[in-house]
Amino acid sequence: MAIAASFHPPRRVLMGPGPSDVHPRVLEAMARPTIGHLDPEFVRMMDELKAMLQAAFRTENRLTLPVSAPGSAGMECCFANLVEPGDKVIVCRNGVFGERMRENVVRCGGEAVVVDDPWGEPVDPQKLADALKAHPDAKVVAFVHAETSTGARSDAETLVRLAREHGCLTIVDTVTALGGIPVEVDAWGADAVYAGTQKCLSCAPGLAPVTFSERAAERVRARRSPVQSWFLDLNLVMGYWGEGARRTYHHTAPVNALYGLHEALRILLEEGLEKAWARHRRHHEALRAGLEAMGLELAVRPEARLPQLNAVRVPEGVDEAAVRRALLERFGLEIGAGLGDLAGKVWRIGLMGASCTERHVLLCLSALEAVLADMGVRLPRGEAVEAARAAWAA
Amino acid sequence: MAIAASFHPPRRVLMGPGPSDVHPRVLEAMARPTIGHLDPEFVRMMDELKAMLQAAFRTENRLTLPVSAPGSAGMECCFANLVEPGDKVIVCRNGVFGERMRENVVRCGGEAVVVDDPWGEPVDPQKLADALKAHPDAKVVAFVHAETSTGARSDAETLVRLAREHGCLTIVDTVTALGGIPVEVDAWGADAVYAGTQKCLSCAPGLAPVTFSERAAERVRARRSPVQSWFLDLNLVMGYWGEGARRTYHHTAPVNALYGLHEALRILLEEGLEKAWARHRRHHEALRAGLEAMGLELAVRPEARLPQLNAVRVPEGVDEAAVRRALLERFGLEIGAGLGDLAGKVWRIGLMGASCTERHVLLCLSALEAVLADMGVRLPRGEAVEAARAAWAA
Repeated sequence: MAIAASFHPPRRVLMGPGPSDVHPRVLEAMARPTIGHLDPEFVRMMDELKAMLQAAFRTENRLTLPVSAPGSAGMECCFANLVEPGDKVIVCRNGVFGERMRENVVRCGGEAVVVDDPWGEPVDPQKLADALKAHPDAKVVAFVHAETSTGARSDAETLVRLAREHGCLTIVDTVTALGGIPVEVDAWGADAVYAGTQKCLSCAPGLAPVTFSERAAERVRARRSPVQSWFLDLNLVMGYWGEGARRTYHHTAPVNALYGLHEALRILLEEGLEKAWARHRRHHEALRAGLEAMGLELAVRPEARLPQLNAVRVPEGVDEAAVRRALLERFGLEIGAGLGDLAGKVWRIGLMGASCTERHVLLCLSALEAVLADMGVRLPRGEAVEAARAAWAA
Repeated sequence: MAIAASFHPPRRVLMGPGPSDVHPRVLEAMARPTIGHLDPEFVRMMDELKAMLQAAFRTENRLTLPVSAPGSAGMECCFANLVEPGDKVIVCRNGVFGERMRENVVRCGGEAVVVDDPWGEPVDPQKLADALKAHPDAKVVAFVHAETSTGARSDAETLVRLAREHGCLTIVDTVTALGGIPVEVDAWGADAVYAGTQKCLSCAPGLAPVTFSERAAERVRARRSPVQSWFLDLNLVMGYWGEGARRTYHHTAPVNALYGLHEALRILLEEGLEKAWARHRRHHEALRAGLEAMGLELAVRPEARLPQLNAVRVPEGVDEAAVRRALLERFGLEIGAGLGDLAGKVWRIGLMGASCTERHVLLCLSALEAVLADMGVRLPRGEAVEAARAAWAA
């Protein structure tokens, strides 16, 4: 066969729903020489990484580690470990990832009780409260904190509190939240929380940080049936990621990806969580002001908007895919398409981690203006950047 | 919290059971800027990667792709997709990974019939033939081609033929085999074959190449029950890795890890599979000659030895962990410990991919001689390197 040429990716600016721009320090860290996954120096690095993950999640949970696979596997890790056949799980569904949670419950042999909210709306706490009353035998409540498919933010603190009042464990998806908005695992009292690396951590995709409370860890240890996934069984994984220098081989850790996450967490903590959250809010306000000045609308109402993921309604009659293609080809700028119910109806513009800067906001606004104008879409022009500047100055 | 310093790994030479030394070209490729997992240029790279994987596996199977997680998840992908509750699976067990296969069968709700062979021995085809006769209702036969825990090589061609004569599908572990010894998926007629990236491909750990025959793919499509893992469900994964430019989002691909695998496959195919296999044989013979000249014994009989993974008996009275520690601290050289039944009884010396060179053999022999001498182990000295040189010259 013909051997392919070495792959040199084109220059891109990543403002979709993830991956976001990966920080050059993270890229460089991933290229450091691979060492053994049981090397004492590597084990020391794992301990540091775990401590930094605990800081990022705001938790002291001992069972805190990166699953060796993407965010979807982090989700599956939480469900496969906490849901046993026959268990009733209340799943709040207001987008693609809530539906994926329901799918996970079913595949674990659980019974899913779905609490539906419209796409683009946050989870309604009253509906959860009603479901908890109607299903006193529910064991787990699962919801998405930051719905990547819609840009809606749910009130994690309230949802966790309701679940706890009814004696339920909680599974919380913070894939798009972590590093962009407050995630307070211990203050909320959440039980199993998973995230991804390729959103506001600005690390390469491929790992899923998870953290389990002592209650959740106890539930895993006390299971009646083995976890159906050997690879994701935390009873086994903890032998490798556990305390102290004595590590038991479970699977070969993705060494270089972990170098990258270690560096990404350093960057996050150097900035400080509060400052990172403030930066996401600030640039979101500028982007929003610019988009609105252009005559575009955000799909989510103001009080439920995620700063890091902006769903923007596609104007009537505009070929949304052609706009994305033009942005990519002419400016190297990636924004995201709508998913599921919102396919064809919105663009998803990410402002995540290293992709959340003044520079990104300005490029996005001016490139989008130029492309829409070229396509003959009549919008007020030239005001977007001004509006963004005014927002920053405010 | 105190933020950890950036992690700079110590200089190591990796001659354990994997990871092996990662080629600098692969490290550099992984550091290239992340682009979107749905970017047209990324999709083109995926097609190239798939074609190169097919070449490496010697198959035309369309369902050939890297699972976004380590080798253990590749194993689980094969079992979770092919084994349904109640299915009878014959598992040949002659080491750690055969036992892990049995565990996978059970966790998928299957019934495992175990065919045991001693650790260090290859799978006995006669025992498999007997089991196939005794269990005419078996649906799948699973075995490990290259047992990483013992260094024994089984006769994959014969085992697959026997299974097929009885109408069974086969699941074959080639994690340590691929790139080091012949893996002939189509010529054998194997059905579900998985590998790892961190052995003879000399890529970073974290991905698991898999390939499924059309028969196996048909079995997956015709399942009575959904695959219990959403993340590993090939019916869904294929929407992303399928033919043509139209890709459906399933999970976010580990973009940079895939850059690395793309480059690692280029390196393998530039050398050529036959030449790579010959290189592994040649340096194995030199290592073996050197070890024997030192008075050490290999644990596996000659006709069943894997060139890329050499299990060496620890001499009576020697503290095997102290030897490994001294090799690591004094020479930066990593060799592996024994696993399971062989813990404390053998060292495992890998000669895999980029770690299979004349330089590696010489370092290993001379470092081992020096460390054993310092520990007062009485062995003939100074002859190991000579014996290796003689083997190369032969």
